[in-house]
Amino acid sequence: MTSEDLMNNIMSLTKRRGFLFPGSAIYGGLANAWDYGPLGVELKNNIQQEWWRWFVQRRADIVGIDPAIFMNSRVWEASGHVKEFADGNLNLLFKTSLGPKKDSAELVYLRGELAQAMFVNFAEVQRTMRMRLPFGIAAQGKVFRNEITPGNFIYRTREFDLMEFEYFVHKSEWKDHFAFWHSEMKKWMEHLGIDMSHVHEVTVPKAERAHYSTKTLDFEYDYPFGRRELYGLAYRTDFDLKNHAKESGEDLSYTDPDSGEKFIPHVIEPTFGLDRSVLVALLEAYTEEEDVPRVVMKFPRWMAPIKVAVLPLVKNDKKVVKKAQEVFELLSPMYTSSYDEGGSIGRRYRRQDEAGTPFCVTVDFDTLTDKAVTVRDRDTMKQKRIKVEALINYFHDVL
Amino acid sequence: MTSEDLMNNIMSLTKRRGFLFPGSAIYGGLANAWDYGPLGVELKNNIQQEWWRWFVQRRADIVGIDPAIFMNSRVWEASGHVKEFADGNLNLLFKTSLGPKKDSAELVYLRGELAQAMFVNFAEVQRTMRMRLPFGIAAQGKVFRNEITPGNFIYRTREFDLMEFEYFVHKSEWKDHFAFWHSEMKKWMEHLGIDMSHVHEVTVPKAERAHYSTKTLDFEYDYPFGRRELYGLAYRTDFDLKNHAKESGEDLSYTDPDSGEKFIPHVIEPTFGLDRSVLVALLEAYTEEEDVPRVVMKFPRWMAPIKVAVLPLVKNDKKVVKKAQEVFELLSPMYTSSYDEGGSIGRRYRRQDEAGTPFCVTVDFDTLTDKAVTVRDRDTMKQKRIKVEALINYFHDVL
Repeated sequence: MTSEDLMNNIMSLTKRRGFLFPGSAIYGGLANAWDYGPLGVELKNNIQQEWWRWFVQRRADIVGIDPAIFMNSRVWEASGHVKEFADGNLNLLFKTSLGPKKDSAELVYLRGELAQAMFVNFAEVQRTMRMRLPFGIAAQGKVFRNEITPGNFIYRTREFDLMEFEYFVHKSEWKDHFAFWHSEMKKWMEHLGIDMSHVHEVTVPKAERAHYSTKTLDFEYDYPFGRRELYGLAYRTDFDLKNHAKESGEDLSYTDPDSGEKFIPHVIEPTFGLDRSVLVALLEAYTEEEDVPRVVMKFPRWMAPIKVAVLPLVKNDKKVVKKAQEVFELLSPMYTSSYDEGGSIGRRYRRQDEAGTPFCVTVDFDTLTDKAVTVRDRDTMKQKRIKVEALINYFHDVL
Repeated sequence: MTSEDLMNNIMSLTKRRGFLFPGSAIYGGLANAWDYGPLGVELKNNIQQEWWRWFVQRRADIVGIDPAIFMNSRVWEASGHVKEFADGNLNLLFKTSLGPKKDSAELVYLRGELAQAMFVNFAEVQRTMRMRLPFGIAAQGKVFRNEITPGNFIYRTREFDLMEFEYFVHKSEWKDHFAFWHSEMKKWMEHLGIDMSHVHEVTVPKAERAHYSTKTLDFEYDYPFGRRELYGLAYRTDFDLKNHAKESGEDLSYTDPDSGEKFIPHVIEPTFGLDRSVLVALLEAYTEEEDVPRVVMKFPRWMAPIKVAVLPLVKNDKKVVKKAQEVFELLSPMYTSSYDEGGSIGRRYRRQDEAGTPFCVTVDFDTLTDKAVTVRDRDTMKQKRIKVEALINYFHDVL
């Protein structure tokens, strides 16, 4: 299979199964806009929420914020984006105007990165949350860039979701923290289920680095359309806090409570594209098997959009259907579940394989007497007979 | 306490404890923009994710999508928003232009509601997910309106988060579905912890209804600044699907698989403002007590930003601190936890009361020998001695 075939097959599957639809399709679309469908939004949310648990909630040294997209335009002047954030000669920031009256309207930019919100809120977060260096401020959300060459499915779009944090450190310690987050980012990629032989690390040469960075490491991935960026790790020095302190006139320094030393912290920034994480998750999961010919999306279980599908063996027996609906009612409050009675059982298994559903629960005539169901494993296709009353415990263990 | 005092006290608490900060504050702010701080983002996420579980994941008849903010501008022409979506004479849609070159740039609007994305994707979602009427399509996300009179904290801002679904039904059944969702919306409000005597239902008169609606019910709430809208329930008829079918030339009808009847579905739309949900959650939780003078945020436990705070009784004993950190490591992978060693224990309890943390776990000198900790309940302030090894089970039961 050529790379182009692979990409076409994946795009076709994601549309057929409701992962992703071209945006505004009934109007002929809008260049490179994509809508996440019912399975896509669950996949995306699972990755986004797992990232938050992984980097924010389980750590005592990182707290999150959810900043507004609209910020005072002086933020983007101070950050250098109004001047420097360009591809060729062309600035990548989208503009709009705020306030209903033309003569008093205020120019605002759609944010081109999340980071500035963490810098602008640095002092307030540090103070209210009583944080001590080193510590991080994380955010997730939409970012907008008027890219010249968007494309390659959801690889590069003009609006996209980022997940990142700014980790504030003493200047003398930046190398250690850079190395620490380098290693933690790799652990996250493994957790996503990425075969690490598909990932390559590239130190970005000075001429290609963003204007704020002294050292940038890109994690590149072998997409079907070539080796391109996946995640980035940048050492932003004190560039941003220093500029904001100067331009705003506010004190953005930190005083070490033990030594009394007062200084502007330096910043290590791990950045994770959420849409690219979804794309890579789709690419890594996509599997064509030949023994029993099928396409199966082998997502890690925690990531799968649907955890359990409940299938009545037949749809024209009221008792079997009623029992299947009861099983669905039992499982759906605990695990994202799907109920499907359309088509032959083999066809429904294939559909759930393409959706990446780890377990199918089939309710048949025997269920009415033995109070047990057949549980089928997505990857091995092996089937087990399990009592309905034991299902919750069973899925609790395997999911 | 006057209403104005109450509002000021709550705004002051939310800033002091890191729930909400004025946006771009170091630059003098940006009118009515707010950034959610570390506690605010957890509160907001908890409500958002609970809504998704409640209305999407646990139901077989509703699926979600996550549509792009940028849509083809013909969507907003067909929907009537370009002509009709106005306050006084002034259109509320924000504009920007897409594509880097001035001469070929494309006008796009920032979406003024989520609903249009559900209509535009209706046929694709129905087909790929094999949905049968009645069924719903849900979404959550940012919406932008260039309001003339924003204000009252996060009550009305120019960018805000909505959660809503379009529920597609046969025309003949709209009244039943309207009544069903009316009742379900009230259940959700009770689940949010709202005292329902603060909620009032108002049938919106024709002159004040949106251009697409035949019947609208507003749920109004007694805010300190007056009785205003909280949620809405609208009967949008087939207005949107019919217009999009006409303007796009696509077939947006549905064929009943049993009767063979082909028709454009009618739509019931429950809409929930996420920021208003957060505001009401803050207002309902805010409690001033006099016996032991304190301010306490009595959030429902599922909603509380931090579930457990771990506090070493003293911070200058290495063994106690180490034990407290161990307890934090034990709990933080399971429950959003906080570790706090700053200030007297009483002061730290007050801080957690203001954060709305349901449980404080205090590690003291006895812990080193009896391997037990003191667990304090936020609302009753009662304390219990519990073995460290039993903590996970204890919190599993109460949280």
